[in-house]
Amino acid sequence: MPKIKAYAAQSPTTPLAPFEIQRRAPGPEDVRIQILFCGVCHSDLHTARGEWRGTLYPCVPGHEIVGRVVAVGERVQNFKIGDLAGVGCMVDSCGHCAPCQEGEEQYCDNGFTGTYNGPVFGGENTYGGYSQAIVVKESFVLRIKHAEQDLASVAPLLCAGITLYSPLRHWGAGPGKRIGIVGLGGLGHMGVKLAHAMGAHVTLFTTSSGKIADGKRLGADEVCISTDPDQMAAQRGKLDLIVNTVAASHDLDAYLTLLKRDGTMTLVGVPPEPHPAPNVFNLIFRRRRIAGSLIGGIRETQEMLDFCAAHGITSDIEKISMDYIDTAYDRMLKSDVKYRFVIDMASLA
Amino acid sequence: MPKIKAYAAQSPTTPLAPFEIQRRAPGPEDVRIQILFCGVCHSDLHTARGEWRGTLYPCVPGHEIVGRVVAVGERVQNFKIGDLAGVGCMVDSCGHCAPCQEGEEQYCDNGFTGTYNGPVFGGENTYGGYSQAIVVKESFVLRIKHAEQDLASVAPLLCAGITLYSPLRHWGAGPGKRIGIVGLGGLGHMGVKLAHAMGAHVTLFTTSSGKIADGKRLGADEVCISTDPDQMAAQRGKLDLIVNTVAASHDLDAYLTLLKRDGTMTLVGVPPEPHPAPNVFNLIFRRRRIAGSLIGGIRETQEMLDFCAAHGITSDIEKISMDYIDTAYDRMLKSDVKYRFVIDMASLA
Repeated sequence: MPKIKAYAAQSPTTPLAPFEIQRRAPGPEDVRIQILFCGVCHSDLHTARGEWRGTLYPCVPGHEIVGRVVAVGERVQNFKIGDLAGVGCMVDSCGHCAPCQEGEEQYCDNGFTGTYNGPVFGGENTYGGYSQAIVVKESFVLRIKHAEQDLASVAPLLCAGITLYSPLRHWGAGPGKRIGIVGLGGLGHMGVKLAHAMGAHVTLFTTSSGKIADGKRLGADEVCISTDPDQMAAQRGKLDLIVNTVAASHDLDAYLTLLKRDGTMTLVGVPPEPHPAPNVFNLIFRRRRIAGSLIGGIRETQEMLDFCAAHGITSDIEKISMDYIDTAYDRMLKSDVKYRFVIDMASLA
Repeated sequence: MPKIKAYAAQSPTTPLAPFEIQRRAPGPEDVRIQILFCGVCHSDLHTARGEWRGTLYPCVPGHEIVGRVVAVGERVQNFKIGDLAGVGCMVDSCGHCAPCQEGEEQYCDNGFTGTYNGPVFGGENTYGGYSQAIVVKESFVLRIKHAEQDLASVAPLLCAGITLYSPLRHWGAGPGKRIGIVGLGGLGHMGVKLAHAMGAHVTLFTTSSGKIADGKRLGADEVCISTDPDQMAAQRGKLDLIVNTVAASHDLDAYLTLLKRDGTMTLVGVPPEPHPAPNVFNLIFRRRRIAGSLIGGIRETQEMLDFCAAHGITSDIEKISMDYIDTAYDRMLKSDVKYRFVIDMASLA
């Protein structure tokens, strides 16, 4: 196969720059996708800059991938050339452990293969979506039912969308339930939209009074300024589920006390420094839970995309060109994006 | 009513000593119980010695109470004079909040009335079971189906028993489930017995190799020495539920990693110093949960007592006289008891 254009980090300290990669020739079960847009996730930044252990360089990030099918292997059944398609955070898993058998590949006992920086089973490091094309086995490719003009805004659903959809579904968000979403960023804004579309009562928690109007526009029934003790006190014991998207270390007790009996706070962000230890009394006295949740399985990701298409849900995005990526990373660190950067891959050509 | 004998702490620093108290005349819905035995719970020690906030002195501890009914009010339906009866950690609750309506009085939104050191609704501080008698409204009195000669060993079921029974039931311990019990003390030894009787596979975690034989005798299928990294590694990802009874601050991650996907570790002890903050990755990567659980409601406490009677389960105890209580406290602090002290109230006469 000819080489294609990509953007890669060569080390933790060098900015991302043009790089050429080769994709494998599609096997019988593979789909080759021309990448049209790729969302920019915080994980991209952490990995490119070596902030998590184990980055393999050169590193081509990107796992919010949407594009068009340009080739299919002979055993591919659900995609044909010309179809829109998506790829999220995983491109493979072992396929035979209990989680894989149950369609929860994100919890693969043998470790799923990440779309980038993931060791291929029996192969090399994977390169992600900051590139012109990708080849992925059909079982990890998602169908997209949104209109083509919305495609750029669909890209972030592949990570940010499923990261919120899965815990909301798993813990029963829906009519009659009061859901808290903590933080209004790339993840949080999807949480507000999705929980609202599921029919739940949504309370957004944000430190910024400048986000009240936006929170309500996105679907929040209430916006609580989390730095205001009176507003927080008014929420005490009211929530069935909190999905906490804040990846900075913060006081979890402030939110635990807002849960009803048997309520759950699910963490979807990993702080660089641990959160302060929560007070065990706050767990014991209402049988509350702290949980974590990791993206979602392929079946559920498809369900999420279909749900979003049916409800007209996409991400609020700012479209950028590939060479803007380091500036975009710096702006993300300042939360200066509403609410997700998406790279237009035409800029790479 | 005439005064009765009791034992009370007069301050955080004075040993428990004889004290006289008065019980109310039984109202129409009240049951008066001559206390025959009272178990000794760590909470007694914490409260008597003022280690938790809010101890009211004089303090008469004791909430693992068993005895004989000696008087009943005119509207009492389920007890008659001569019956065996028990009283646990609660003697009242508001009765109208959602938890109370659902029979989960321990989570009463308005705060249940503790058997001791609890503000009576509209009244004074409550005095517990280190006394000759107690008057409790019928709806908070438990029936006892065990044989009378087992009565002393039944007492600890009223707190230690229900504290383990409730989370085991709530999180579905039973055949085909692998349950971990952390710590073999008053709580943990009940957890091993109960989980075994429920039909689960039970793994006991203890720091002490001296407890292996006892753990197996009590019903553990496996005993894992938690200080042995190889033994801990062998348990990784195997457990559906862990009930962690250890009230000393310790590394929760060591146990979180033993849970399967969607597994829960329930904490039933509150450490004086917070546990080190758990690693969020360990929650996210298998959608694990950390929860808390507080005793159990009256209905469930009755269910537990009936379950224990049917399965021949009691607590392993060391019977003591009332004047031994401070020595018993000191021995409890050294974990020098197998596995619960129970006061013979005849020693108070």
